Amino acid sequence: MRVGLLTGGSDCPGLNAVIRAVVRKGVQDHGDTFVGFRDGWRGVLVDDAAELGITDVRGTLPRGGTILGSSRTDPLAQADGPARVRATLESRGLDGLIVIGGIHTLGAAASLADEHGLPCVGVPKTIDNDVSRTDYTVGFDTAVTVATETIDRLHTTAESHKRVLVVEVMGRESGWIATYAGLAGGANGVLIPEYPFDLERVCSWVTSRFGASYAPIVVVADNARPADTTVRLGGLSGIGEWLGREIERRTGHEARATVLGHIQRGGTPTPFDRWLATRFGLHAIDAVHDRAWGRMVALRGTEVTRVRLADAVAAPKTVDRSRYAENEVFFG
Amino acid sequence: MRVGLLTGGSDCPGLNAVIRAVVRKGVQDHGDTFVGFRDGWRGVLVDDAAELGITDVRGTLPRGGTILGSSRTDPLAQADGPARVRATLESRGLDGLIVIGGIHTLGAAASLADEHGLPCVGVPKTIDNDVSRTDYTVGFDTAVTVATETIDRLHTTAESHKRVLVVEVMGRESGWIATYAGLAGGANGVLIPEYPFDLERVCSWVTSRFGASYAPIVVVADNARPADTTVRLGGLSGIGEWLGREIERRTGHEARATVLGHIQRGGTPTPFDRWLATRFGLHAIDAVHDRAWGRMVALRGTEVTRVRLADAVAAPKTVDRSRYAENEVFFG
Amino acid sequence: MRVGLLTGGSDCPGLNAVIRAVVRKGVQDHGDTFVGFRDGWRGVLVDDAAELGITDVRGTLPRGGTILGSSRTDPLAQADGPARVRATLESRGLDGLIVIGGIHTLGAAASLADEHGLPCVGVPKTIDNDVSRTDYTVGFDTAVTVATETIDRLHTTAESHKRVLVVEVMGRESGWIATYAGLAGGANGVLIPEYPFDLERVCSWVTSRFGASYAPIVVVADNARPADTTVRLGGLSGIGEWLGREIERRTGHEARATVLGHIQRGGTPTPFDRWLATRFGLHAIDAVHDRAWGRMVALRGTEVTRVRLADAVAAPKTVDRSRYAENEVFFG
Amino acid sequence: MRVGLLTGGSDCPGLNAVIRAVVRKGVQDHGDTFVGFRDGWRGVLVDDAAELGITDVRGTLPRGGTILGSSRTDPLAQADGPARVRATLESRGLDGLIVIGGIHTLGAAASLADEHGLPCVGVPKTIDNDVSRTDYTVGFDTAVTVATETIDRLHTTAESHKRVLVVEVMGRESGWIATYAGLAGGANGVLIPEYPFDLERVCSWVTSRFGASYAPIVVVADNARPADTTVRLGGLSGIGEWLGREIERRTGHEARATVLGHIQRGGTPTPFDRWLATRFGLHAIDAVHDRAWGRMVALRGTEVTRVRLADAVAAPKTVDRSRYAENEVFFG
Repeated sequence: MRVGLLTGGSDCPGLNAVIRAVVRKGVQDHGDTFVGFRDGWRGVLVDDAAELGITDVRGTLPRGGTILGSSRTDPLAQADGPARVRATLESRGLDGLIVIGGIHTLGAAASLADEHGLPCVGVPKTIDNDVSRTDYTVGFDTAVTVATETIDRLHTTAESHKRVLVVEVMGRESGWIATYAGLAGGANGVLIPEYPFDLERVCSWVTSRFGASYAPIVVVADNARPADTTVRLGGLSGIGEWLGREIERRTGHEARATVLGHIQRGGTPTPFDRWLATRFGLHAIDAVHDRAWGRMVALRGTEVTRVRLADAVAAPKTVDRSRYAENEVFFG
Repeated sequence: MRVGLLTGGSDCPGLNAVIRAVVRKGVQDHGDTFVGFRDGWRGVLVDDAAELGITDVRGTLPRGGTILGSSRTDPLAQADGPARVRATLESRGLDGLIVIGGIHTLGAAASLADEHGLPCVGVPKTIDNDVSRTDYTVGFDTAVTVATETIDRLHTTAESHKRVLVVEVMGRESGWIATYAGLAGGANGVLIPEYPFDLERVCSWVTSRFGASYAPIVVVADNARPADTTVRLGGLSGIGEWLGREIERRTGHEARATVLGHIQRGGTPTPFDRWLATRFGLHAIDAVHDRAWGRMVALRGTEVTRVRLADAVAAPKTVDRSRYAENEVFFG
Repeated sequence: MRVGLLTGGSDCPGLNAVIRAVVRKGVQDHGDTFVGFRDGWRGVLVDDAAELGITDVRGTLPRGGTILGSSRTDPLAQADGPARVRATLESRGLDGLIVIGGIHTLGAAASLADEHGLPCVGVPKTIDNDVSRTDYTVGFDTAVTVATETIDRLHTTAESHKRVLVVEVMGRESGWIATYAGLAGGANGVLIPEYPFDLERVCSWVTSRFGASYAPIVVVADNARPADTTVRLGGLSGIGEWLGREIERRTGHEARATVLGHIQRGGTPTPFDRWLATRFGLHAIDAVHDRAWGRMVALRGTEVTRVRLADAVAAPKTVDRSRYAENEVFFG
Repeated sequence: MRVGLLTGGSDCPGLNAVIRAVVRKGVQDHGDTFVGFRDGWRGVLVDDAAELGITDVRGTLPRGGTILGSSRTDPLAQADGPARVRATLESRGLDGLIVIGGIHTLGAAASLADEHGLPCVGVPKTIDNDVSRTDYTVGFDTAVTVATETIDRLHTTAESHKRVLVVEVMGRESGWIATYAGLAGGANGVLIPEYPFDLERVCSWVTSRFGASYAPIVVVADNARPADTTVRLGGLSGIGEWLGREIERRTGHEARATVLGHIQRGGTPTPFDRWLATRFGLHAIDAVHDRAWGRMVALRGTEVTRVRLADAVAAPKTVDRSRYAENEVFFG
């Protein structure tokens, strides 16, 4: 078969590992040929692409980023988008398209497959881990690892200086990175968008922690918000800065904020992410050969399965109460 | 309740994280008290133990090893073993015992619970990942990470010097570390105990790899063996040395072996292992309060569940054919 | 002899390694006894201290932070400071005081030794590397390593998204971290306080870099400033945010800032920092036994020497033109 | 000018960083052109080479190994070697040759320059750090870092299992890696070729260490030997295995050996090595333009200087008594 590939949305570690596995298995086992589109859906809309062979993917397993480039272009944002996608697939002679992306990129693939009959197969990737129907997305474990290593480093300053340290991590509408890195890093508070927080309660953790041992570390997802909706964050850069200032003002303890930003999505993928990305790639090319259009490869335990793309993107996967309660054991 | 804790078998990263989570939750939520036995079952047999409180476990989350010490003592190896375990539990006034270990340590717990009615709950840990009925054991992800980082480092020598590099990893009767690290590290061959290997086929990978690009890396589990059972390993240290020598002799390409050994089981746990260990600890103390004797906490997808200890240790978990076939895509 | 120890100023990796080496050598070779003051000069002024023996320092070599705590208290800020320092040393029966700190902490030690005759020996530590008369200070190599690892991670986002990435690092009045990490991380621009920058020139690097390959990474020290002194940074958090906004406005290329902050000073020290800290500790206790008051241990090549504390703190060590010219080879 | 480049001897991290800096500065500042010889002196002898431009070196800063390949070919091993080197330089129109290597590769360059008038400039690289007249060689800091990280991991097993752990590191005729990593990793014994060891003394460290705390870690360079020259290592793989067995036999404490091997020379260079390699590259192309034939760039403190190649390779740099005495403070 002749198969197209694209990576859309924000970059994250493991994208190249997916591409490599698809190409290695497709060429060796099936004699497939591949076309790589540049910069996500943009490359499909304007037909910016190049042939992709085994030598192109050699050595890319440990490399972050994406050799195809990425963009946030949405093929459904323009009326003739689906027609242009179809035209490119036809002119390139493609039997299928493997779409590697997060909720928005995969959401477009779901529509194109279900409503326009285009031969799309999805692979979930995003550091935010918010794609449904899969245990994990490619890139998440690396983001958690970077965030945890940062928290590890901050513990020593918290110990030595008796300063409250606030760490702002990413997560879009869900609190997965904060939840995992908070548990793994030994945070004394974790605030996530799913559960608006009570600032007084956060301050009580800070105060009780100082009583018990040294200064606390509070992890906050960039979209976490106080329950009191009359609060205004003001002109500061983000929730982390705001929270640090409020904790300092209310508890009298000095506080500092660290905003992780882009370092969560860069660098070499962890072994877990390479393993997941490689297996997703192997199963995605199988799905193409099974003409499983409109499906996404997904992790369930240690098995790679297939789910409907439409189900995977219907709503962001969020952290449920019982999981958050596990974090709460360590608050204060 | 009053609860005992022990860690048995080889040490691995994440043991302290389990202990810390058990104690934090038990003390805070239930007012439990804890006794830590020294050096695994030995500490129970001879009643070598100390009280364990929140201050004892503070700061231990990122530390490898075990604050309780470990040993391979088997309480069933002596006729009066079960009676002595019972005597210690009674004299210490213990309502339950949390046993953190691999197949042998947990196997003893299964017998003591099922055949002698002793109140044991298990937590699976081993870098070998060979405990059944759980997706992962504590320590495995760290071992895979160390092995993968090693393979990453060896790639540059393989590239620069055109030398075949053989990496011997651990795994006891199963090939999990080799399978995961081989996939994550981009190995050109992975040999595991589950599937005795054909030396000629290994040599053909080596030869074909040299034709296509640079020198190959072959990962071999320490108990992998050639299919030809007439072969003798001779006086060398292990399978890695032997394999390197055979490849060199048969293909004419220079080969070197690296034996990872103990570094796979030491150091700070990865975020995944800390997360798993912490959650296992939280669920283990819940299991004690539920008097779920003879049960083991286990990971299924992202959920922590309970399984029968006896089922978990009935046979080592091994790598099945379809999983190994995923590795094979990258051989040669 | 009986010797006091304190760590002052901001914490940094390697402080515990200094303390451990002092105590190990002092106790073993000389039968010395030690007193550790809490929170820098504050502990001396108010006589907050504890005995320090070999068991107290065991296992601390790899740990960041300081087991003694730290503060920015200046013993010369109060008229009776020197008298109180003398009183504490006398009441504790101390023959000497080892002062581990940066410019301000060591500056106080210089005055107390030279002007008040107090028996002080200095050890230079600061991630900023701005203490004169020593090749390096303890903590600097770790800060450079953290900054470089961050830049490594950002390269993949720069490649995949064609975004200018600005990294703000620490450095107080000097640009050492930026200079080293910029060279080691392959930055396309490095801005340091020693050489006020021309914003147009920075923008020309950005533009030319986009022409040649992918998006540029610009490293900026937190006290770097534009040469045009009429420029106002406005209400943003710092120079990094401001620079990112200006680059975006002037070149039309999207830009993002990452502010490293406290993670540069936390965590386990690099092997180089442990080696330096350990050797500084060994030589500091030798200096005490030589009654080399008013002296600081210093690195010259691979030798540890002694210099006058007063010379070491007379002016911050800065990056000279020829060194900065080495970075400039890679700009644009 | 037109300049050749080669990398000889074993590969090590930082070689590509040297090449990149040479090419970047040469092309930009001087309009130089470059030829890269394949596999060290072999490429010069048989004229196996390719043009080398800025795009060839882009992105290579963080990559281990060498894009030019390497070999141990000695151009002086054959009578017509010098003539063939001269012929290749002339036919390629080269004004100078930058030779990046260790003692043997640089030794050949010294002879070719001094005795045959060939335009060679040297850059010292080797994980062994045994080139004289320079504080450090490229690759050494990375090897020390890998060795130290390994020792860190082994501490937890030493603590948990009360096993003596022997770590065998590289070093050829000198003990630099063992000396630095032993100090940085907190080893309880360090054995190097410069000072033949007394096995009874090593055993006494082991015994006293067990009395004081937990199990000891002994670092041994691969060419360290017992002072008693009647001792035979027997059929084991190396000194590490032998030492472990002897310690176990004589002290009764269980012992295990770990042999680091090739992982010490692979992977991404540390920031220090990238910084050193980059600066060496910048100064090497300057030396070519100054026609400083027969010279080697060298580090003295924080300055890059030039020394005579002949002096640098006259004898291996070894660890002197006073430096080794610093390690001895921590023995036992």
